[in-house]
Amino acid sequence: MSGVGLVSAQIAHFTQPLALKGGGLLPAFDLVYETYGTLNAAKSNAILVCHALSGHHHVAGHTEGNPANIGWWDNIVGPGRPLDTERFFIVGVNNLGGCHGSTGPASTNPATGKPWGADFPVVTVEDWVDAQARLADHLGIGAWAAVMGGSLGGMQALQWTLSFPDRVRHALVIAAAPKLSAENIAFNDVARQAILTDPDFHGGHFYEHGVRPVRGLRLARMLGHITYLSDDQMAEKFGRRLRTGAGSYGFDVEFEIESYLRYQGDKFAGVFDANTYLRMTKALDYFDPAQDFDDDLARALARARAKFLVVAFSTDWRFSPERSREIVHALVHNGQAVAYAEIDSAHGHDSFLMDEPHYHAVVDTYLKRVKL
Amino acid sequence: MSGVGLVSAQIAHFTQPLALKGGGLLPAFDLVYETYGTLNAAKSNAILVCHALSGHHHVAGHTEGNPANIGWWDNIVGPGRPLDTERFFIVGVNNLGGCHGSTGPASTNPATGKPWGADFPVVTVEDWVDAQARLADHLGIGAWAAVMGGSLGGMQALQWTLSFPDRVRHALVIAAAPKLSAENIAFNDVARQAILTDPDFHGGHFYEHGVRPVRGLRLARMLGHITYLSDDQMAEKFGRRLRTGAGSYGFDVEFEIESYLRYQGDKFAGVFDANTYLRMTKALDYFDPAQDFDDDLARALARARAKFLVVAFSTDWRFSPERSREIVHALVHNGQAVAYAEIDSAHGHDSFLMDEPHYHAVVDTYLKRVKL
Repeated sequence: MSGVGLVSAQIAHFTQPLALKGGGLLPAFDLVYETYGTLNAAKSNAILVCHALSGHHHVAGHTEGNPANIGWWDNIVGPGRPLDTERFFIVGVNNLGGCHGSTGPASTNPATGKPWGADFPVVTVEDWVDAQARLADHLGIGAWAAVMGGSLGGMQALQWTLSFPDRVRHALVIAAAPKLSAENIAFNDVARQAILTDPDFHGGHFYEHGVRPVRGLRLARMLGHITYLSDDQMAEKFGRRLRTGAGSYGFDVEFEIESYLRYQGDKFAGVFDANTYLRMTKALDYFDPAQDFDDDLARALARARAKFLVVAFSTDWRFSPERSREIVHALVHNGQAVAYAEIDSAHGHDSFLMDEPHYHAVVDTYLKRVKL
Repeated sequence: MSGVGLVSAQIAHFTQPLALKGGGLLPAFDLVYETYGTLNAAKSNAILVCHALSGHHHVAGHTEGNPANIGWWDNIVGPGRPLDTERFFIVGVNNLGGCHGSTGPASTNPATGKPWGADFPVVTVEDWVDAQARLADHLGIGAWAAVMGGSLGGMQALQWTLSFPDRVRHALVIAAAPKLSAENIAFNDVARQAILTDPDFHGGHFYEHGVRPVRGLRLARMLGHITYLSDDQMAEKFGRRLRTGAGSYGFDVEFEIESYLRYQGDKFAGVFDANTYLRMTKALDYFDPAQDFDDDLARALARARAKFLVVAFSTDWRFSPERSREIVHALVHNGQAVAYAEIDSAHGHDSFLMDEPHYHAVVDTYLKRVKL
């Protein structure tokens, strides 16, 4: 056990309203975050880790009295690990609109004294980056040594280089895409419709009814999991194996893949906030930095000053290597500094969370060369 | 307008119980069917068309007083079309468990005098073929010149060659697979869970409550449509285009793909029976002719006497060309007669329903060589 050990979250309060891309202002807000390692005197060794759809600030280590509550990216963060806490100061943050302690739909709306619910604004990747910049200010970090994330987290890393070109020296964009495809949006919309049409959703104000739209959330998560895994991995892991006692010619669980998906769906639906899920998927749909540049990604990325590491995984069909190469090609076209690794991995989109030796070696090597 | 014109359905009543693969007997049952063309004196020119998940017996032509009610495979059936009604006698049938006139979950259970609902048995591809054989008997057809179908219909064509090797001379297996992958089953299970957890499903006995689980059916259909289309086709057809007036940073329809999917979902949910949908997807999941042969498809198909035409489509990711080639390789291994065509088409799994010139030419040429 060589990880970061016991960790605890902190909360930063921001009283200056935040202007949102979708219009309007978010009044005072909180961000919950964790840090690992020590900020050096020059404040030049900070790495921001951005989370994906269902992630949060608890990136590494375990929490007080709960040794099983290990951070979601613990395998890559710690002494001697690729995000080496003996060298770097790592920051994990729960995004605005989240459900793990930062201000979100379940928080109290100061205007009504009741939970925001459906009235919490739709937040975008740009908004998250703006809020994260406030956290950087709060921590006294002028520029990040690196901003890093997988999937939706990778989009935030990319957006950092555009929103604050001078405040990020390296961007590690893992298993991401420069924008969603129509098919990606389609999957998100089915997931959202499952939540929005759940009778327990109550138009987003379910908190006041003492219920939660668990049916919709469960379906959304089951569907999500299909897109996170690779077809080959599913075949290898589950095949068409029947569970013991199955073969009933009925509608109970029969195939192991069904058991896996329902378990994942139930687990998620028991804890996650439906309004947060809706907003996270919308942030994905809206992300499109090239939109204001006639869909010319190279022009859109031209203002970035960071150096890039882009990583993709061979069996990822949610954001396939082709999508990562779009980013790489745009950067190469501009003569910007970019390293690209395409990792052979069986784990589909989820590969970015896995302890893949080649992948971790790439990140490790890249970060070792980052000057402090 | 050179199609078969006005058509009308007929109903065949069967009073002999049908033994089902899942156990038990289905007492007396009805099959609704349509025919196009004329059965020749030798009764050697009959083609059975098997339908897929949401299909039915109305394959071609239009119905009385409803010129817009065109059969689902009208583009391939008619005088001079690949399934040439001047030469062949075509039979379309609604499968057992369906919701278009054949005995199914909405029919009256003779034991209770109420709709079968959840008590209607889970029927399999083998059961359908057995029931279709009764219809062949009823029509005096000893052996089909051909049995043909796309997707789940193609599985029925394949099963015909195994259940009744001497009663089918040619099998046209289009856009099918020898069994579902774990990923295929996973998509089906999410669709089923959407229906089963809809509060209006009432454990399958919704008929008595005067409601229908339209939310669940709608989600199931939306999800299905994602898997029927190709990613490229979606990109070309919808891209990331916003609907007029959209860009609201809310949860209404914004992207055109959302509008399309919701429309398809609503249309389907308005008319289709939820219990039928559950059973059609289960029939897909269970289909696995190699299961009793140690997963050796070649051994499983060895008893077929038919000649085969197998057709796959380049952009079909639900049942990719690889899956069709599994069937072809098994047949080739056995020295059985098989022709295979892999058609370049942009329309994904739905290609089998499209008026693709190359595809129709392949079917046309194949059927012209069928001796009567």
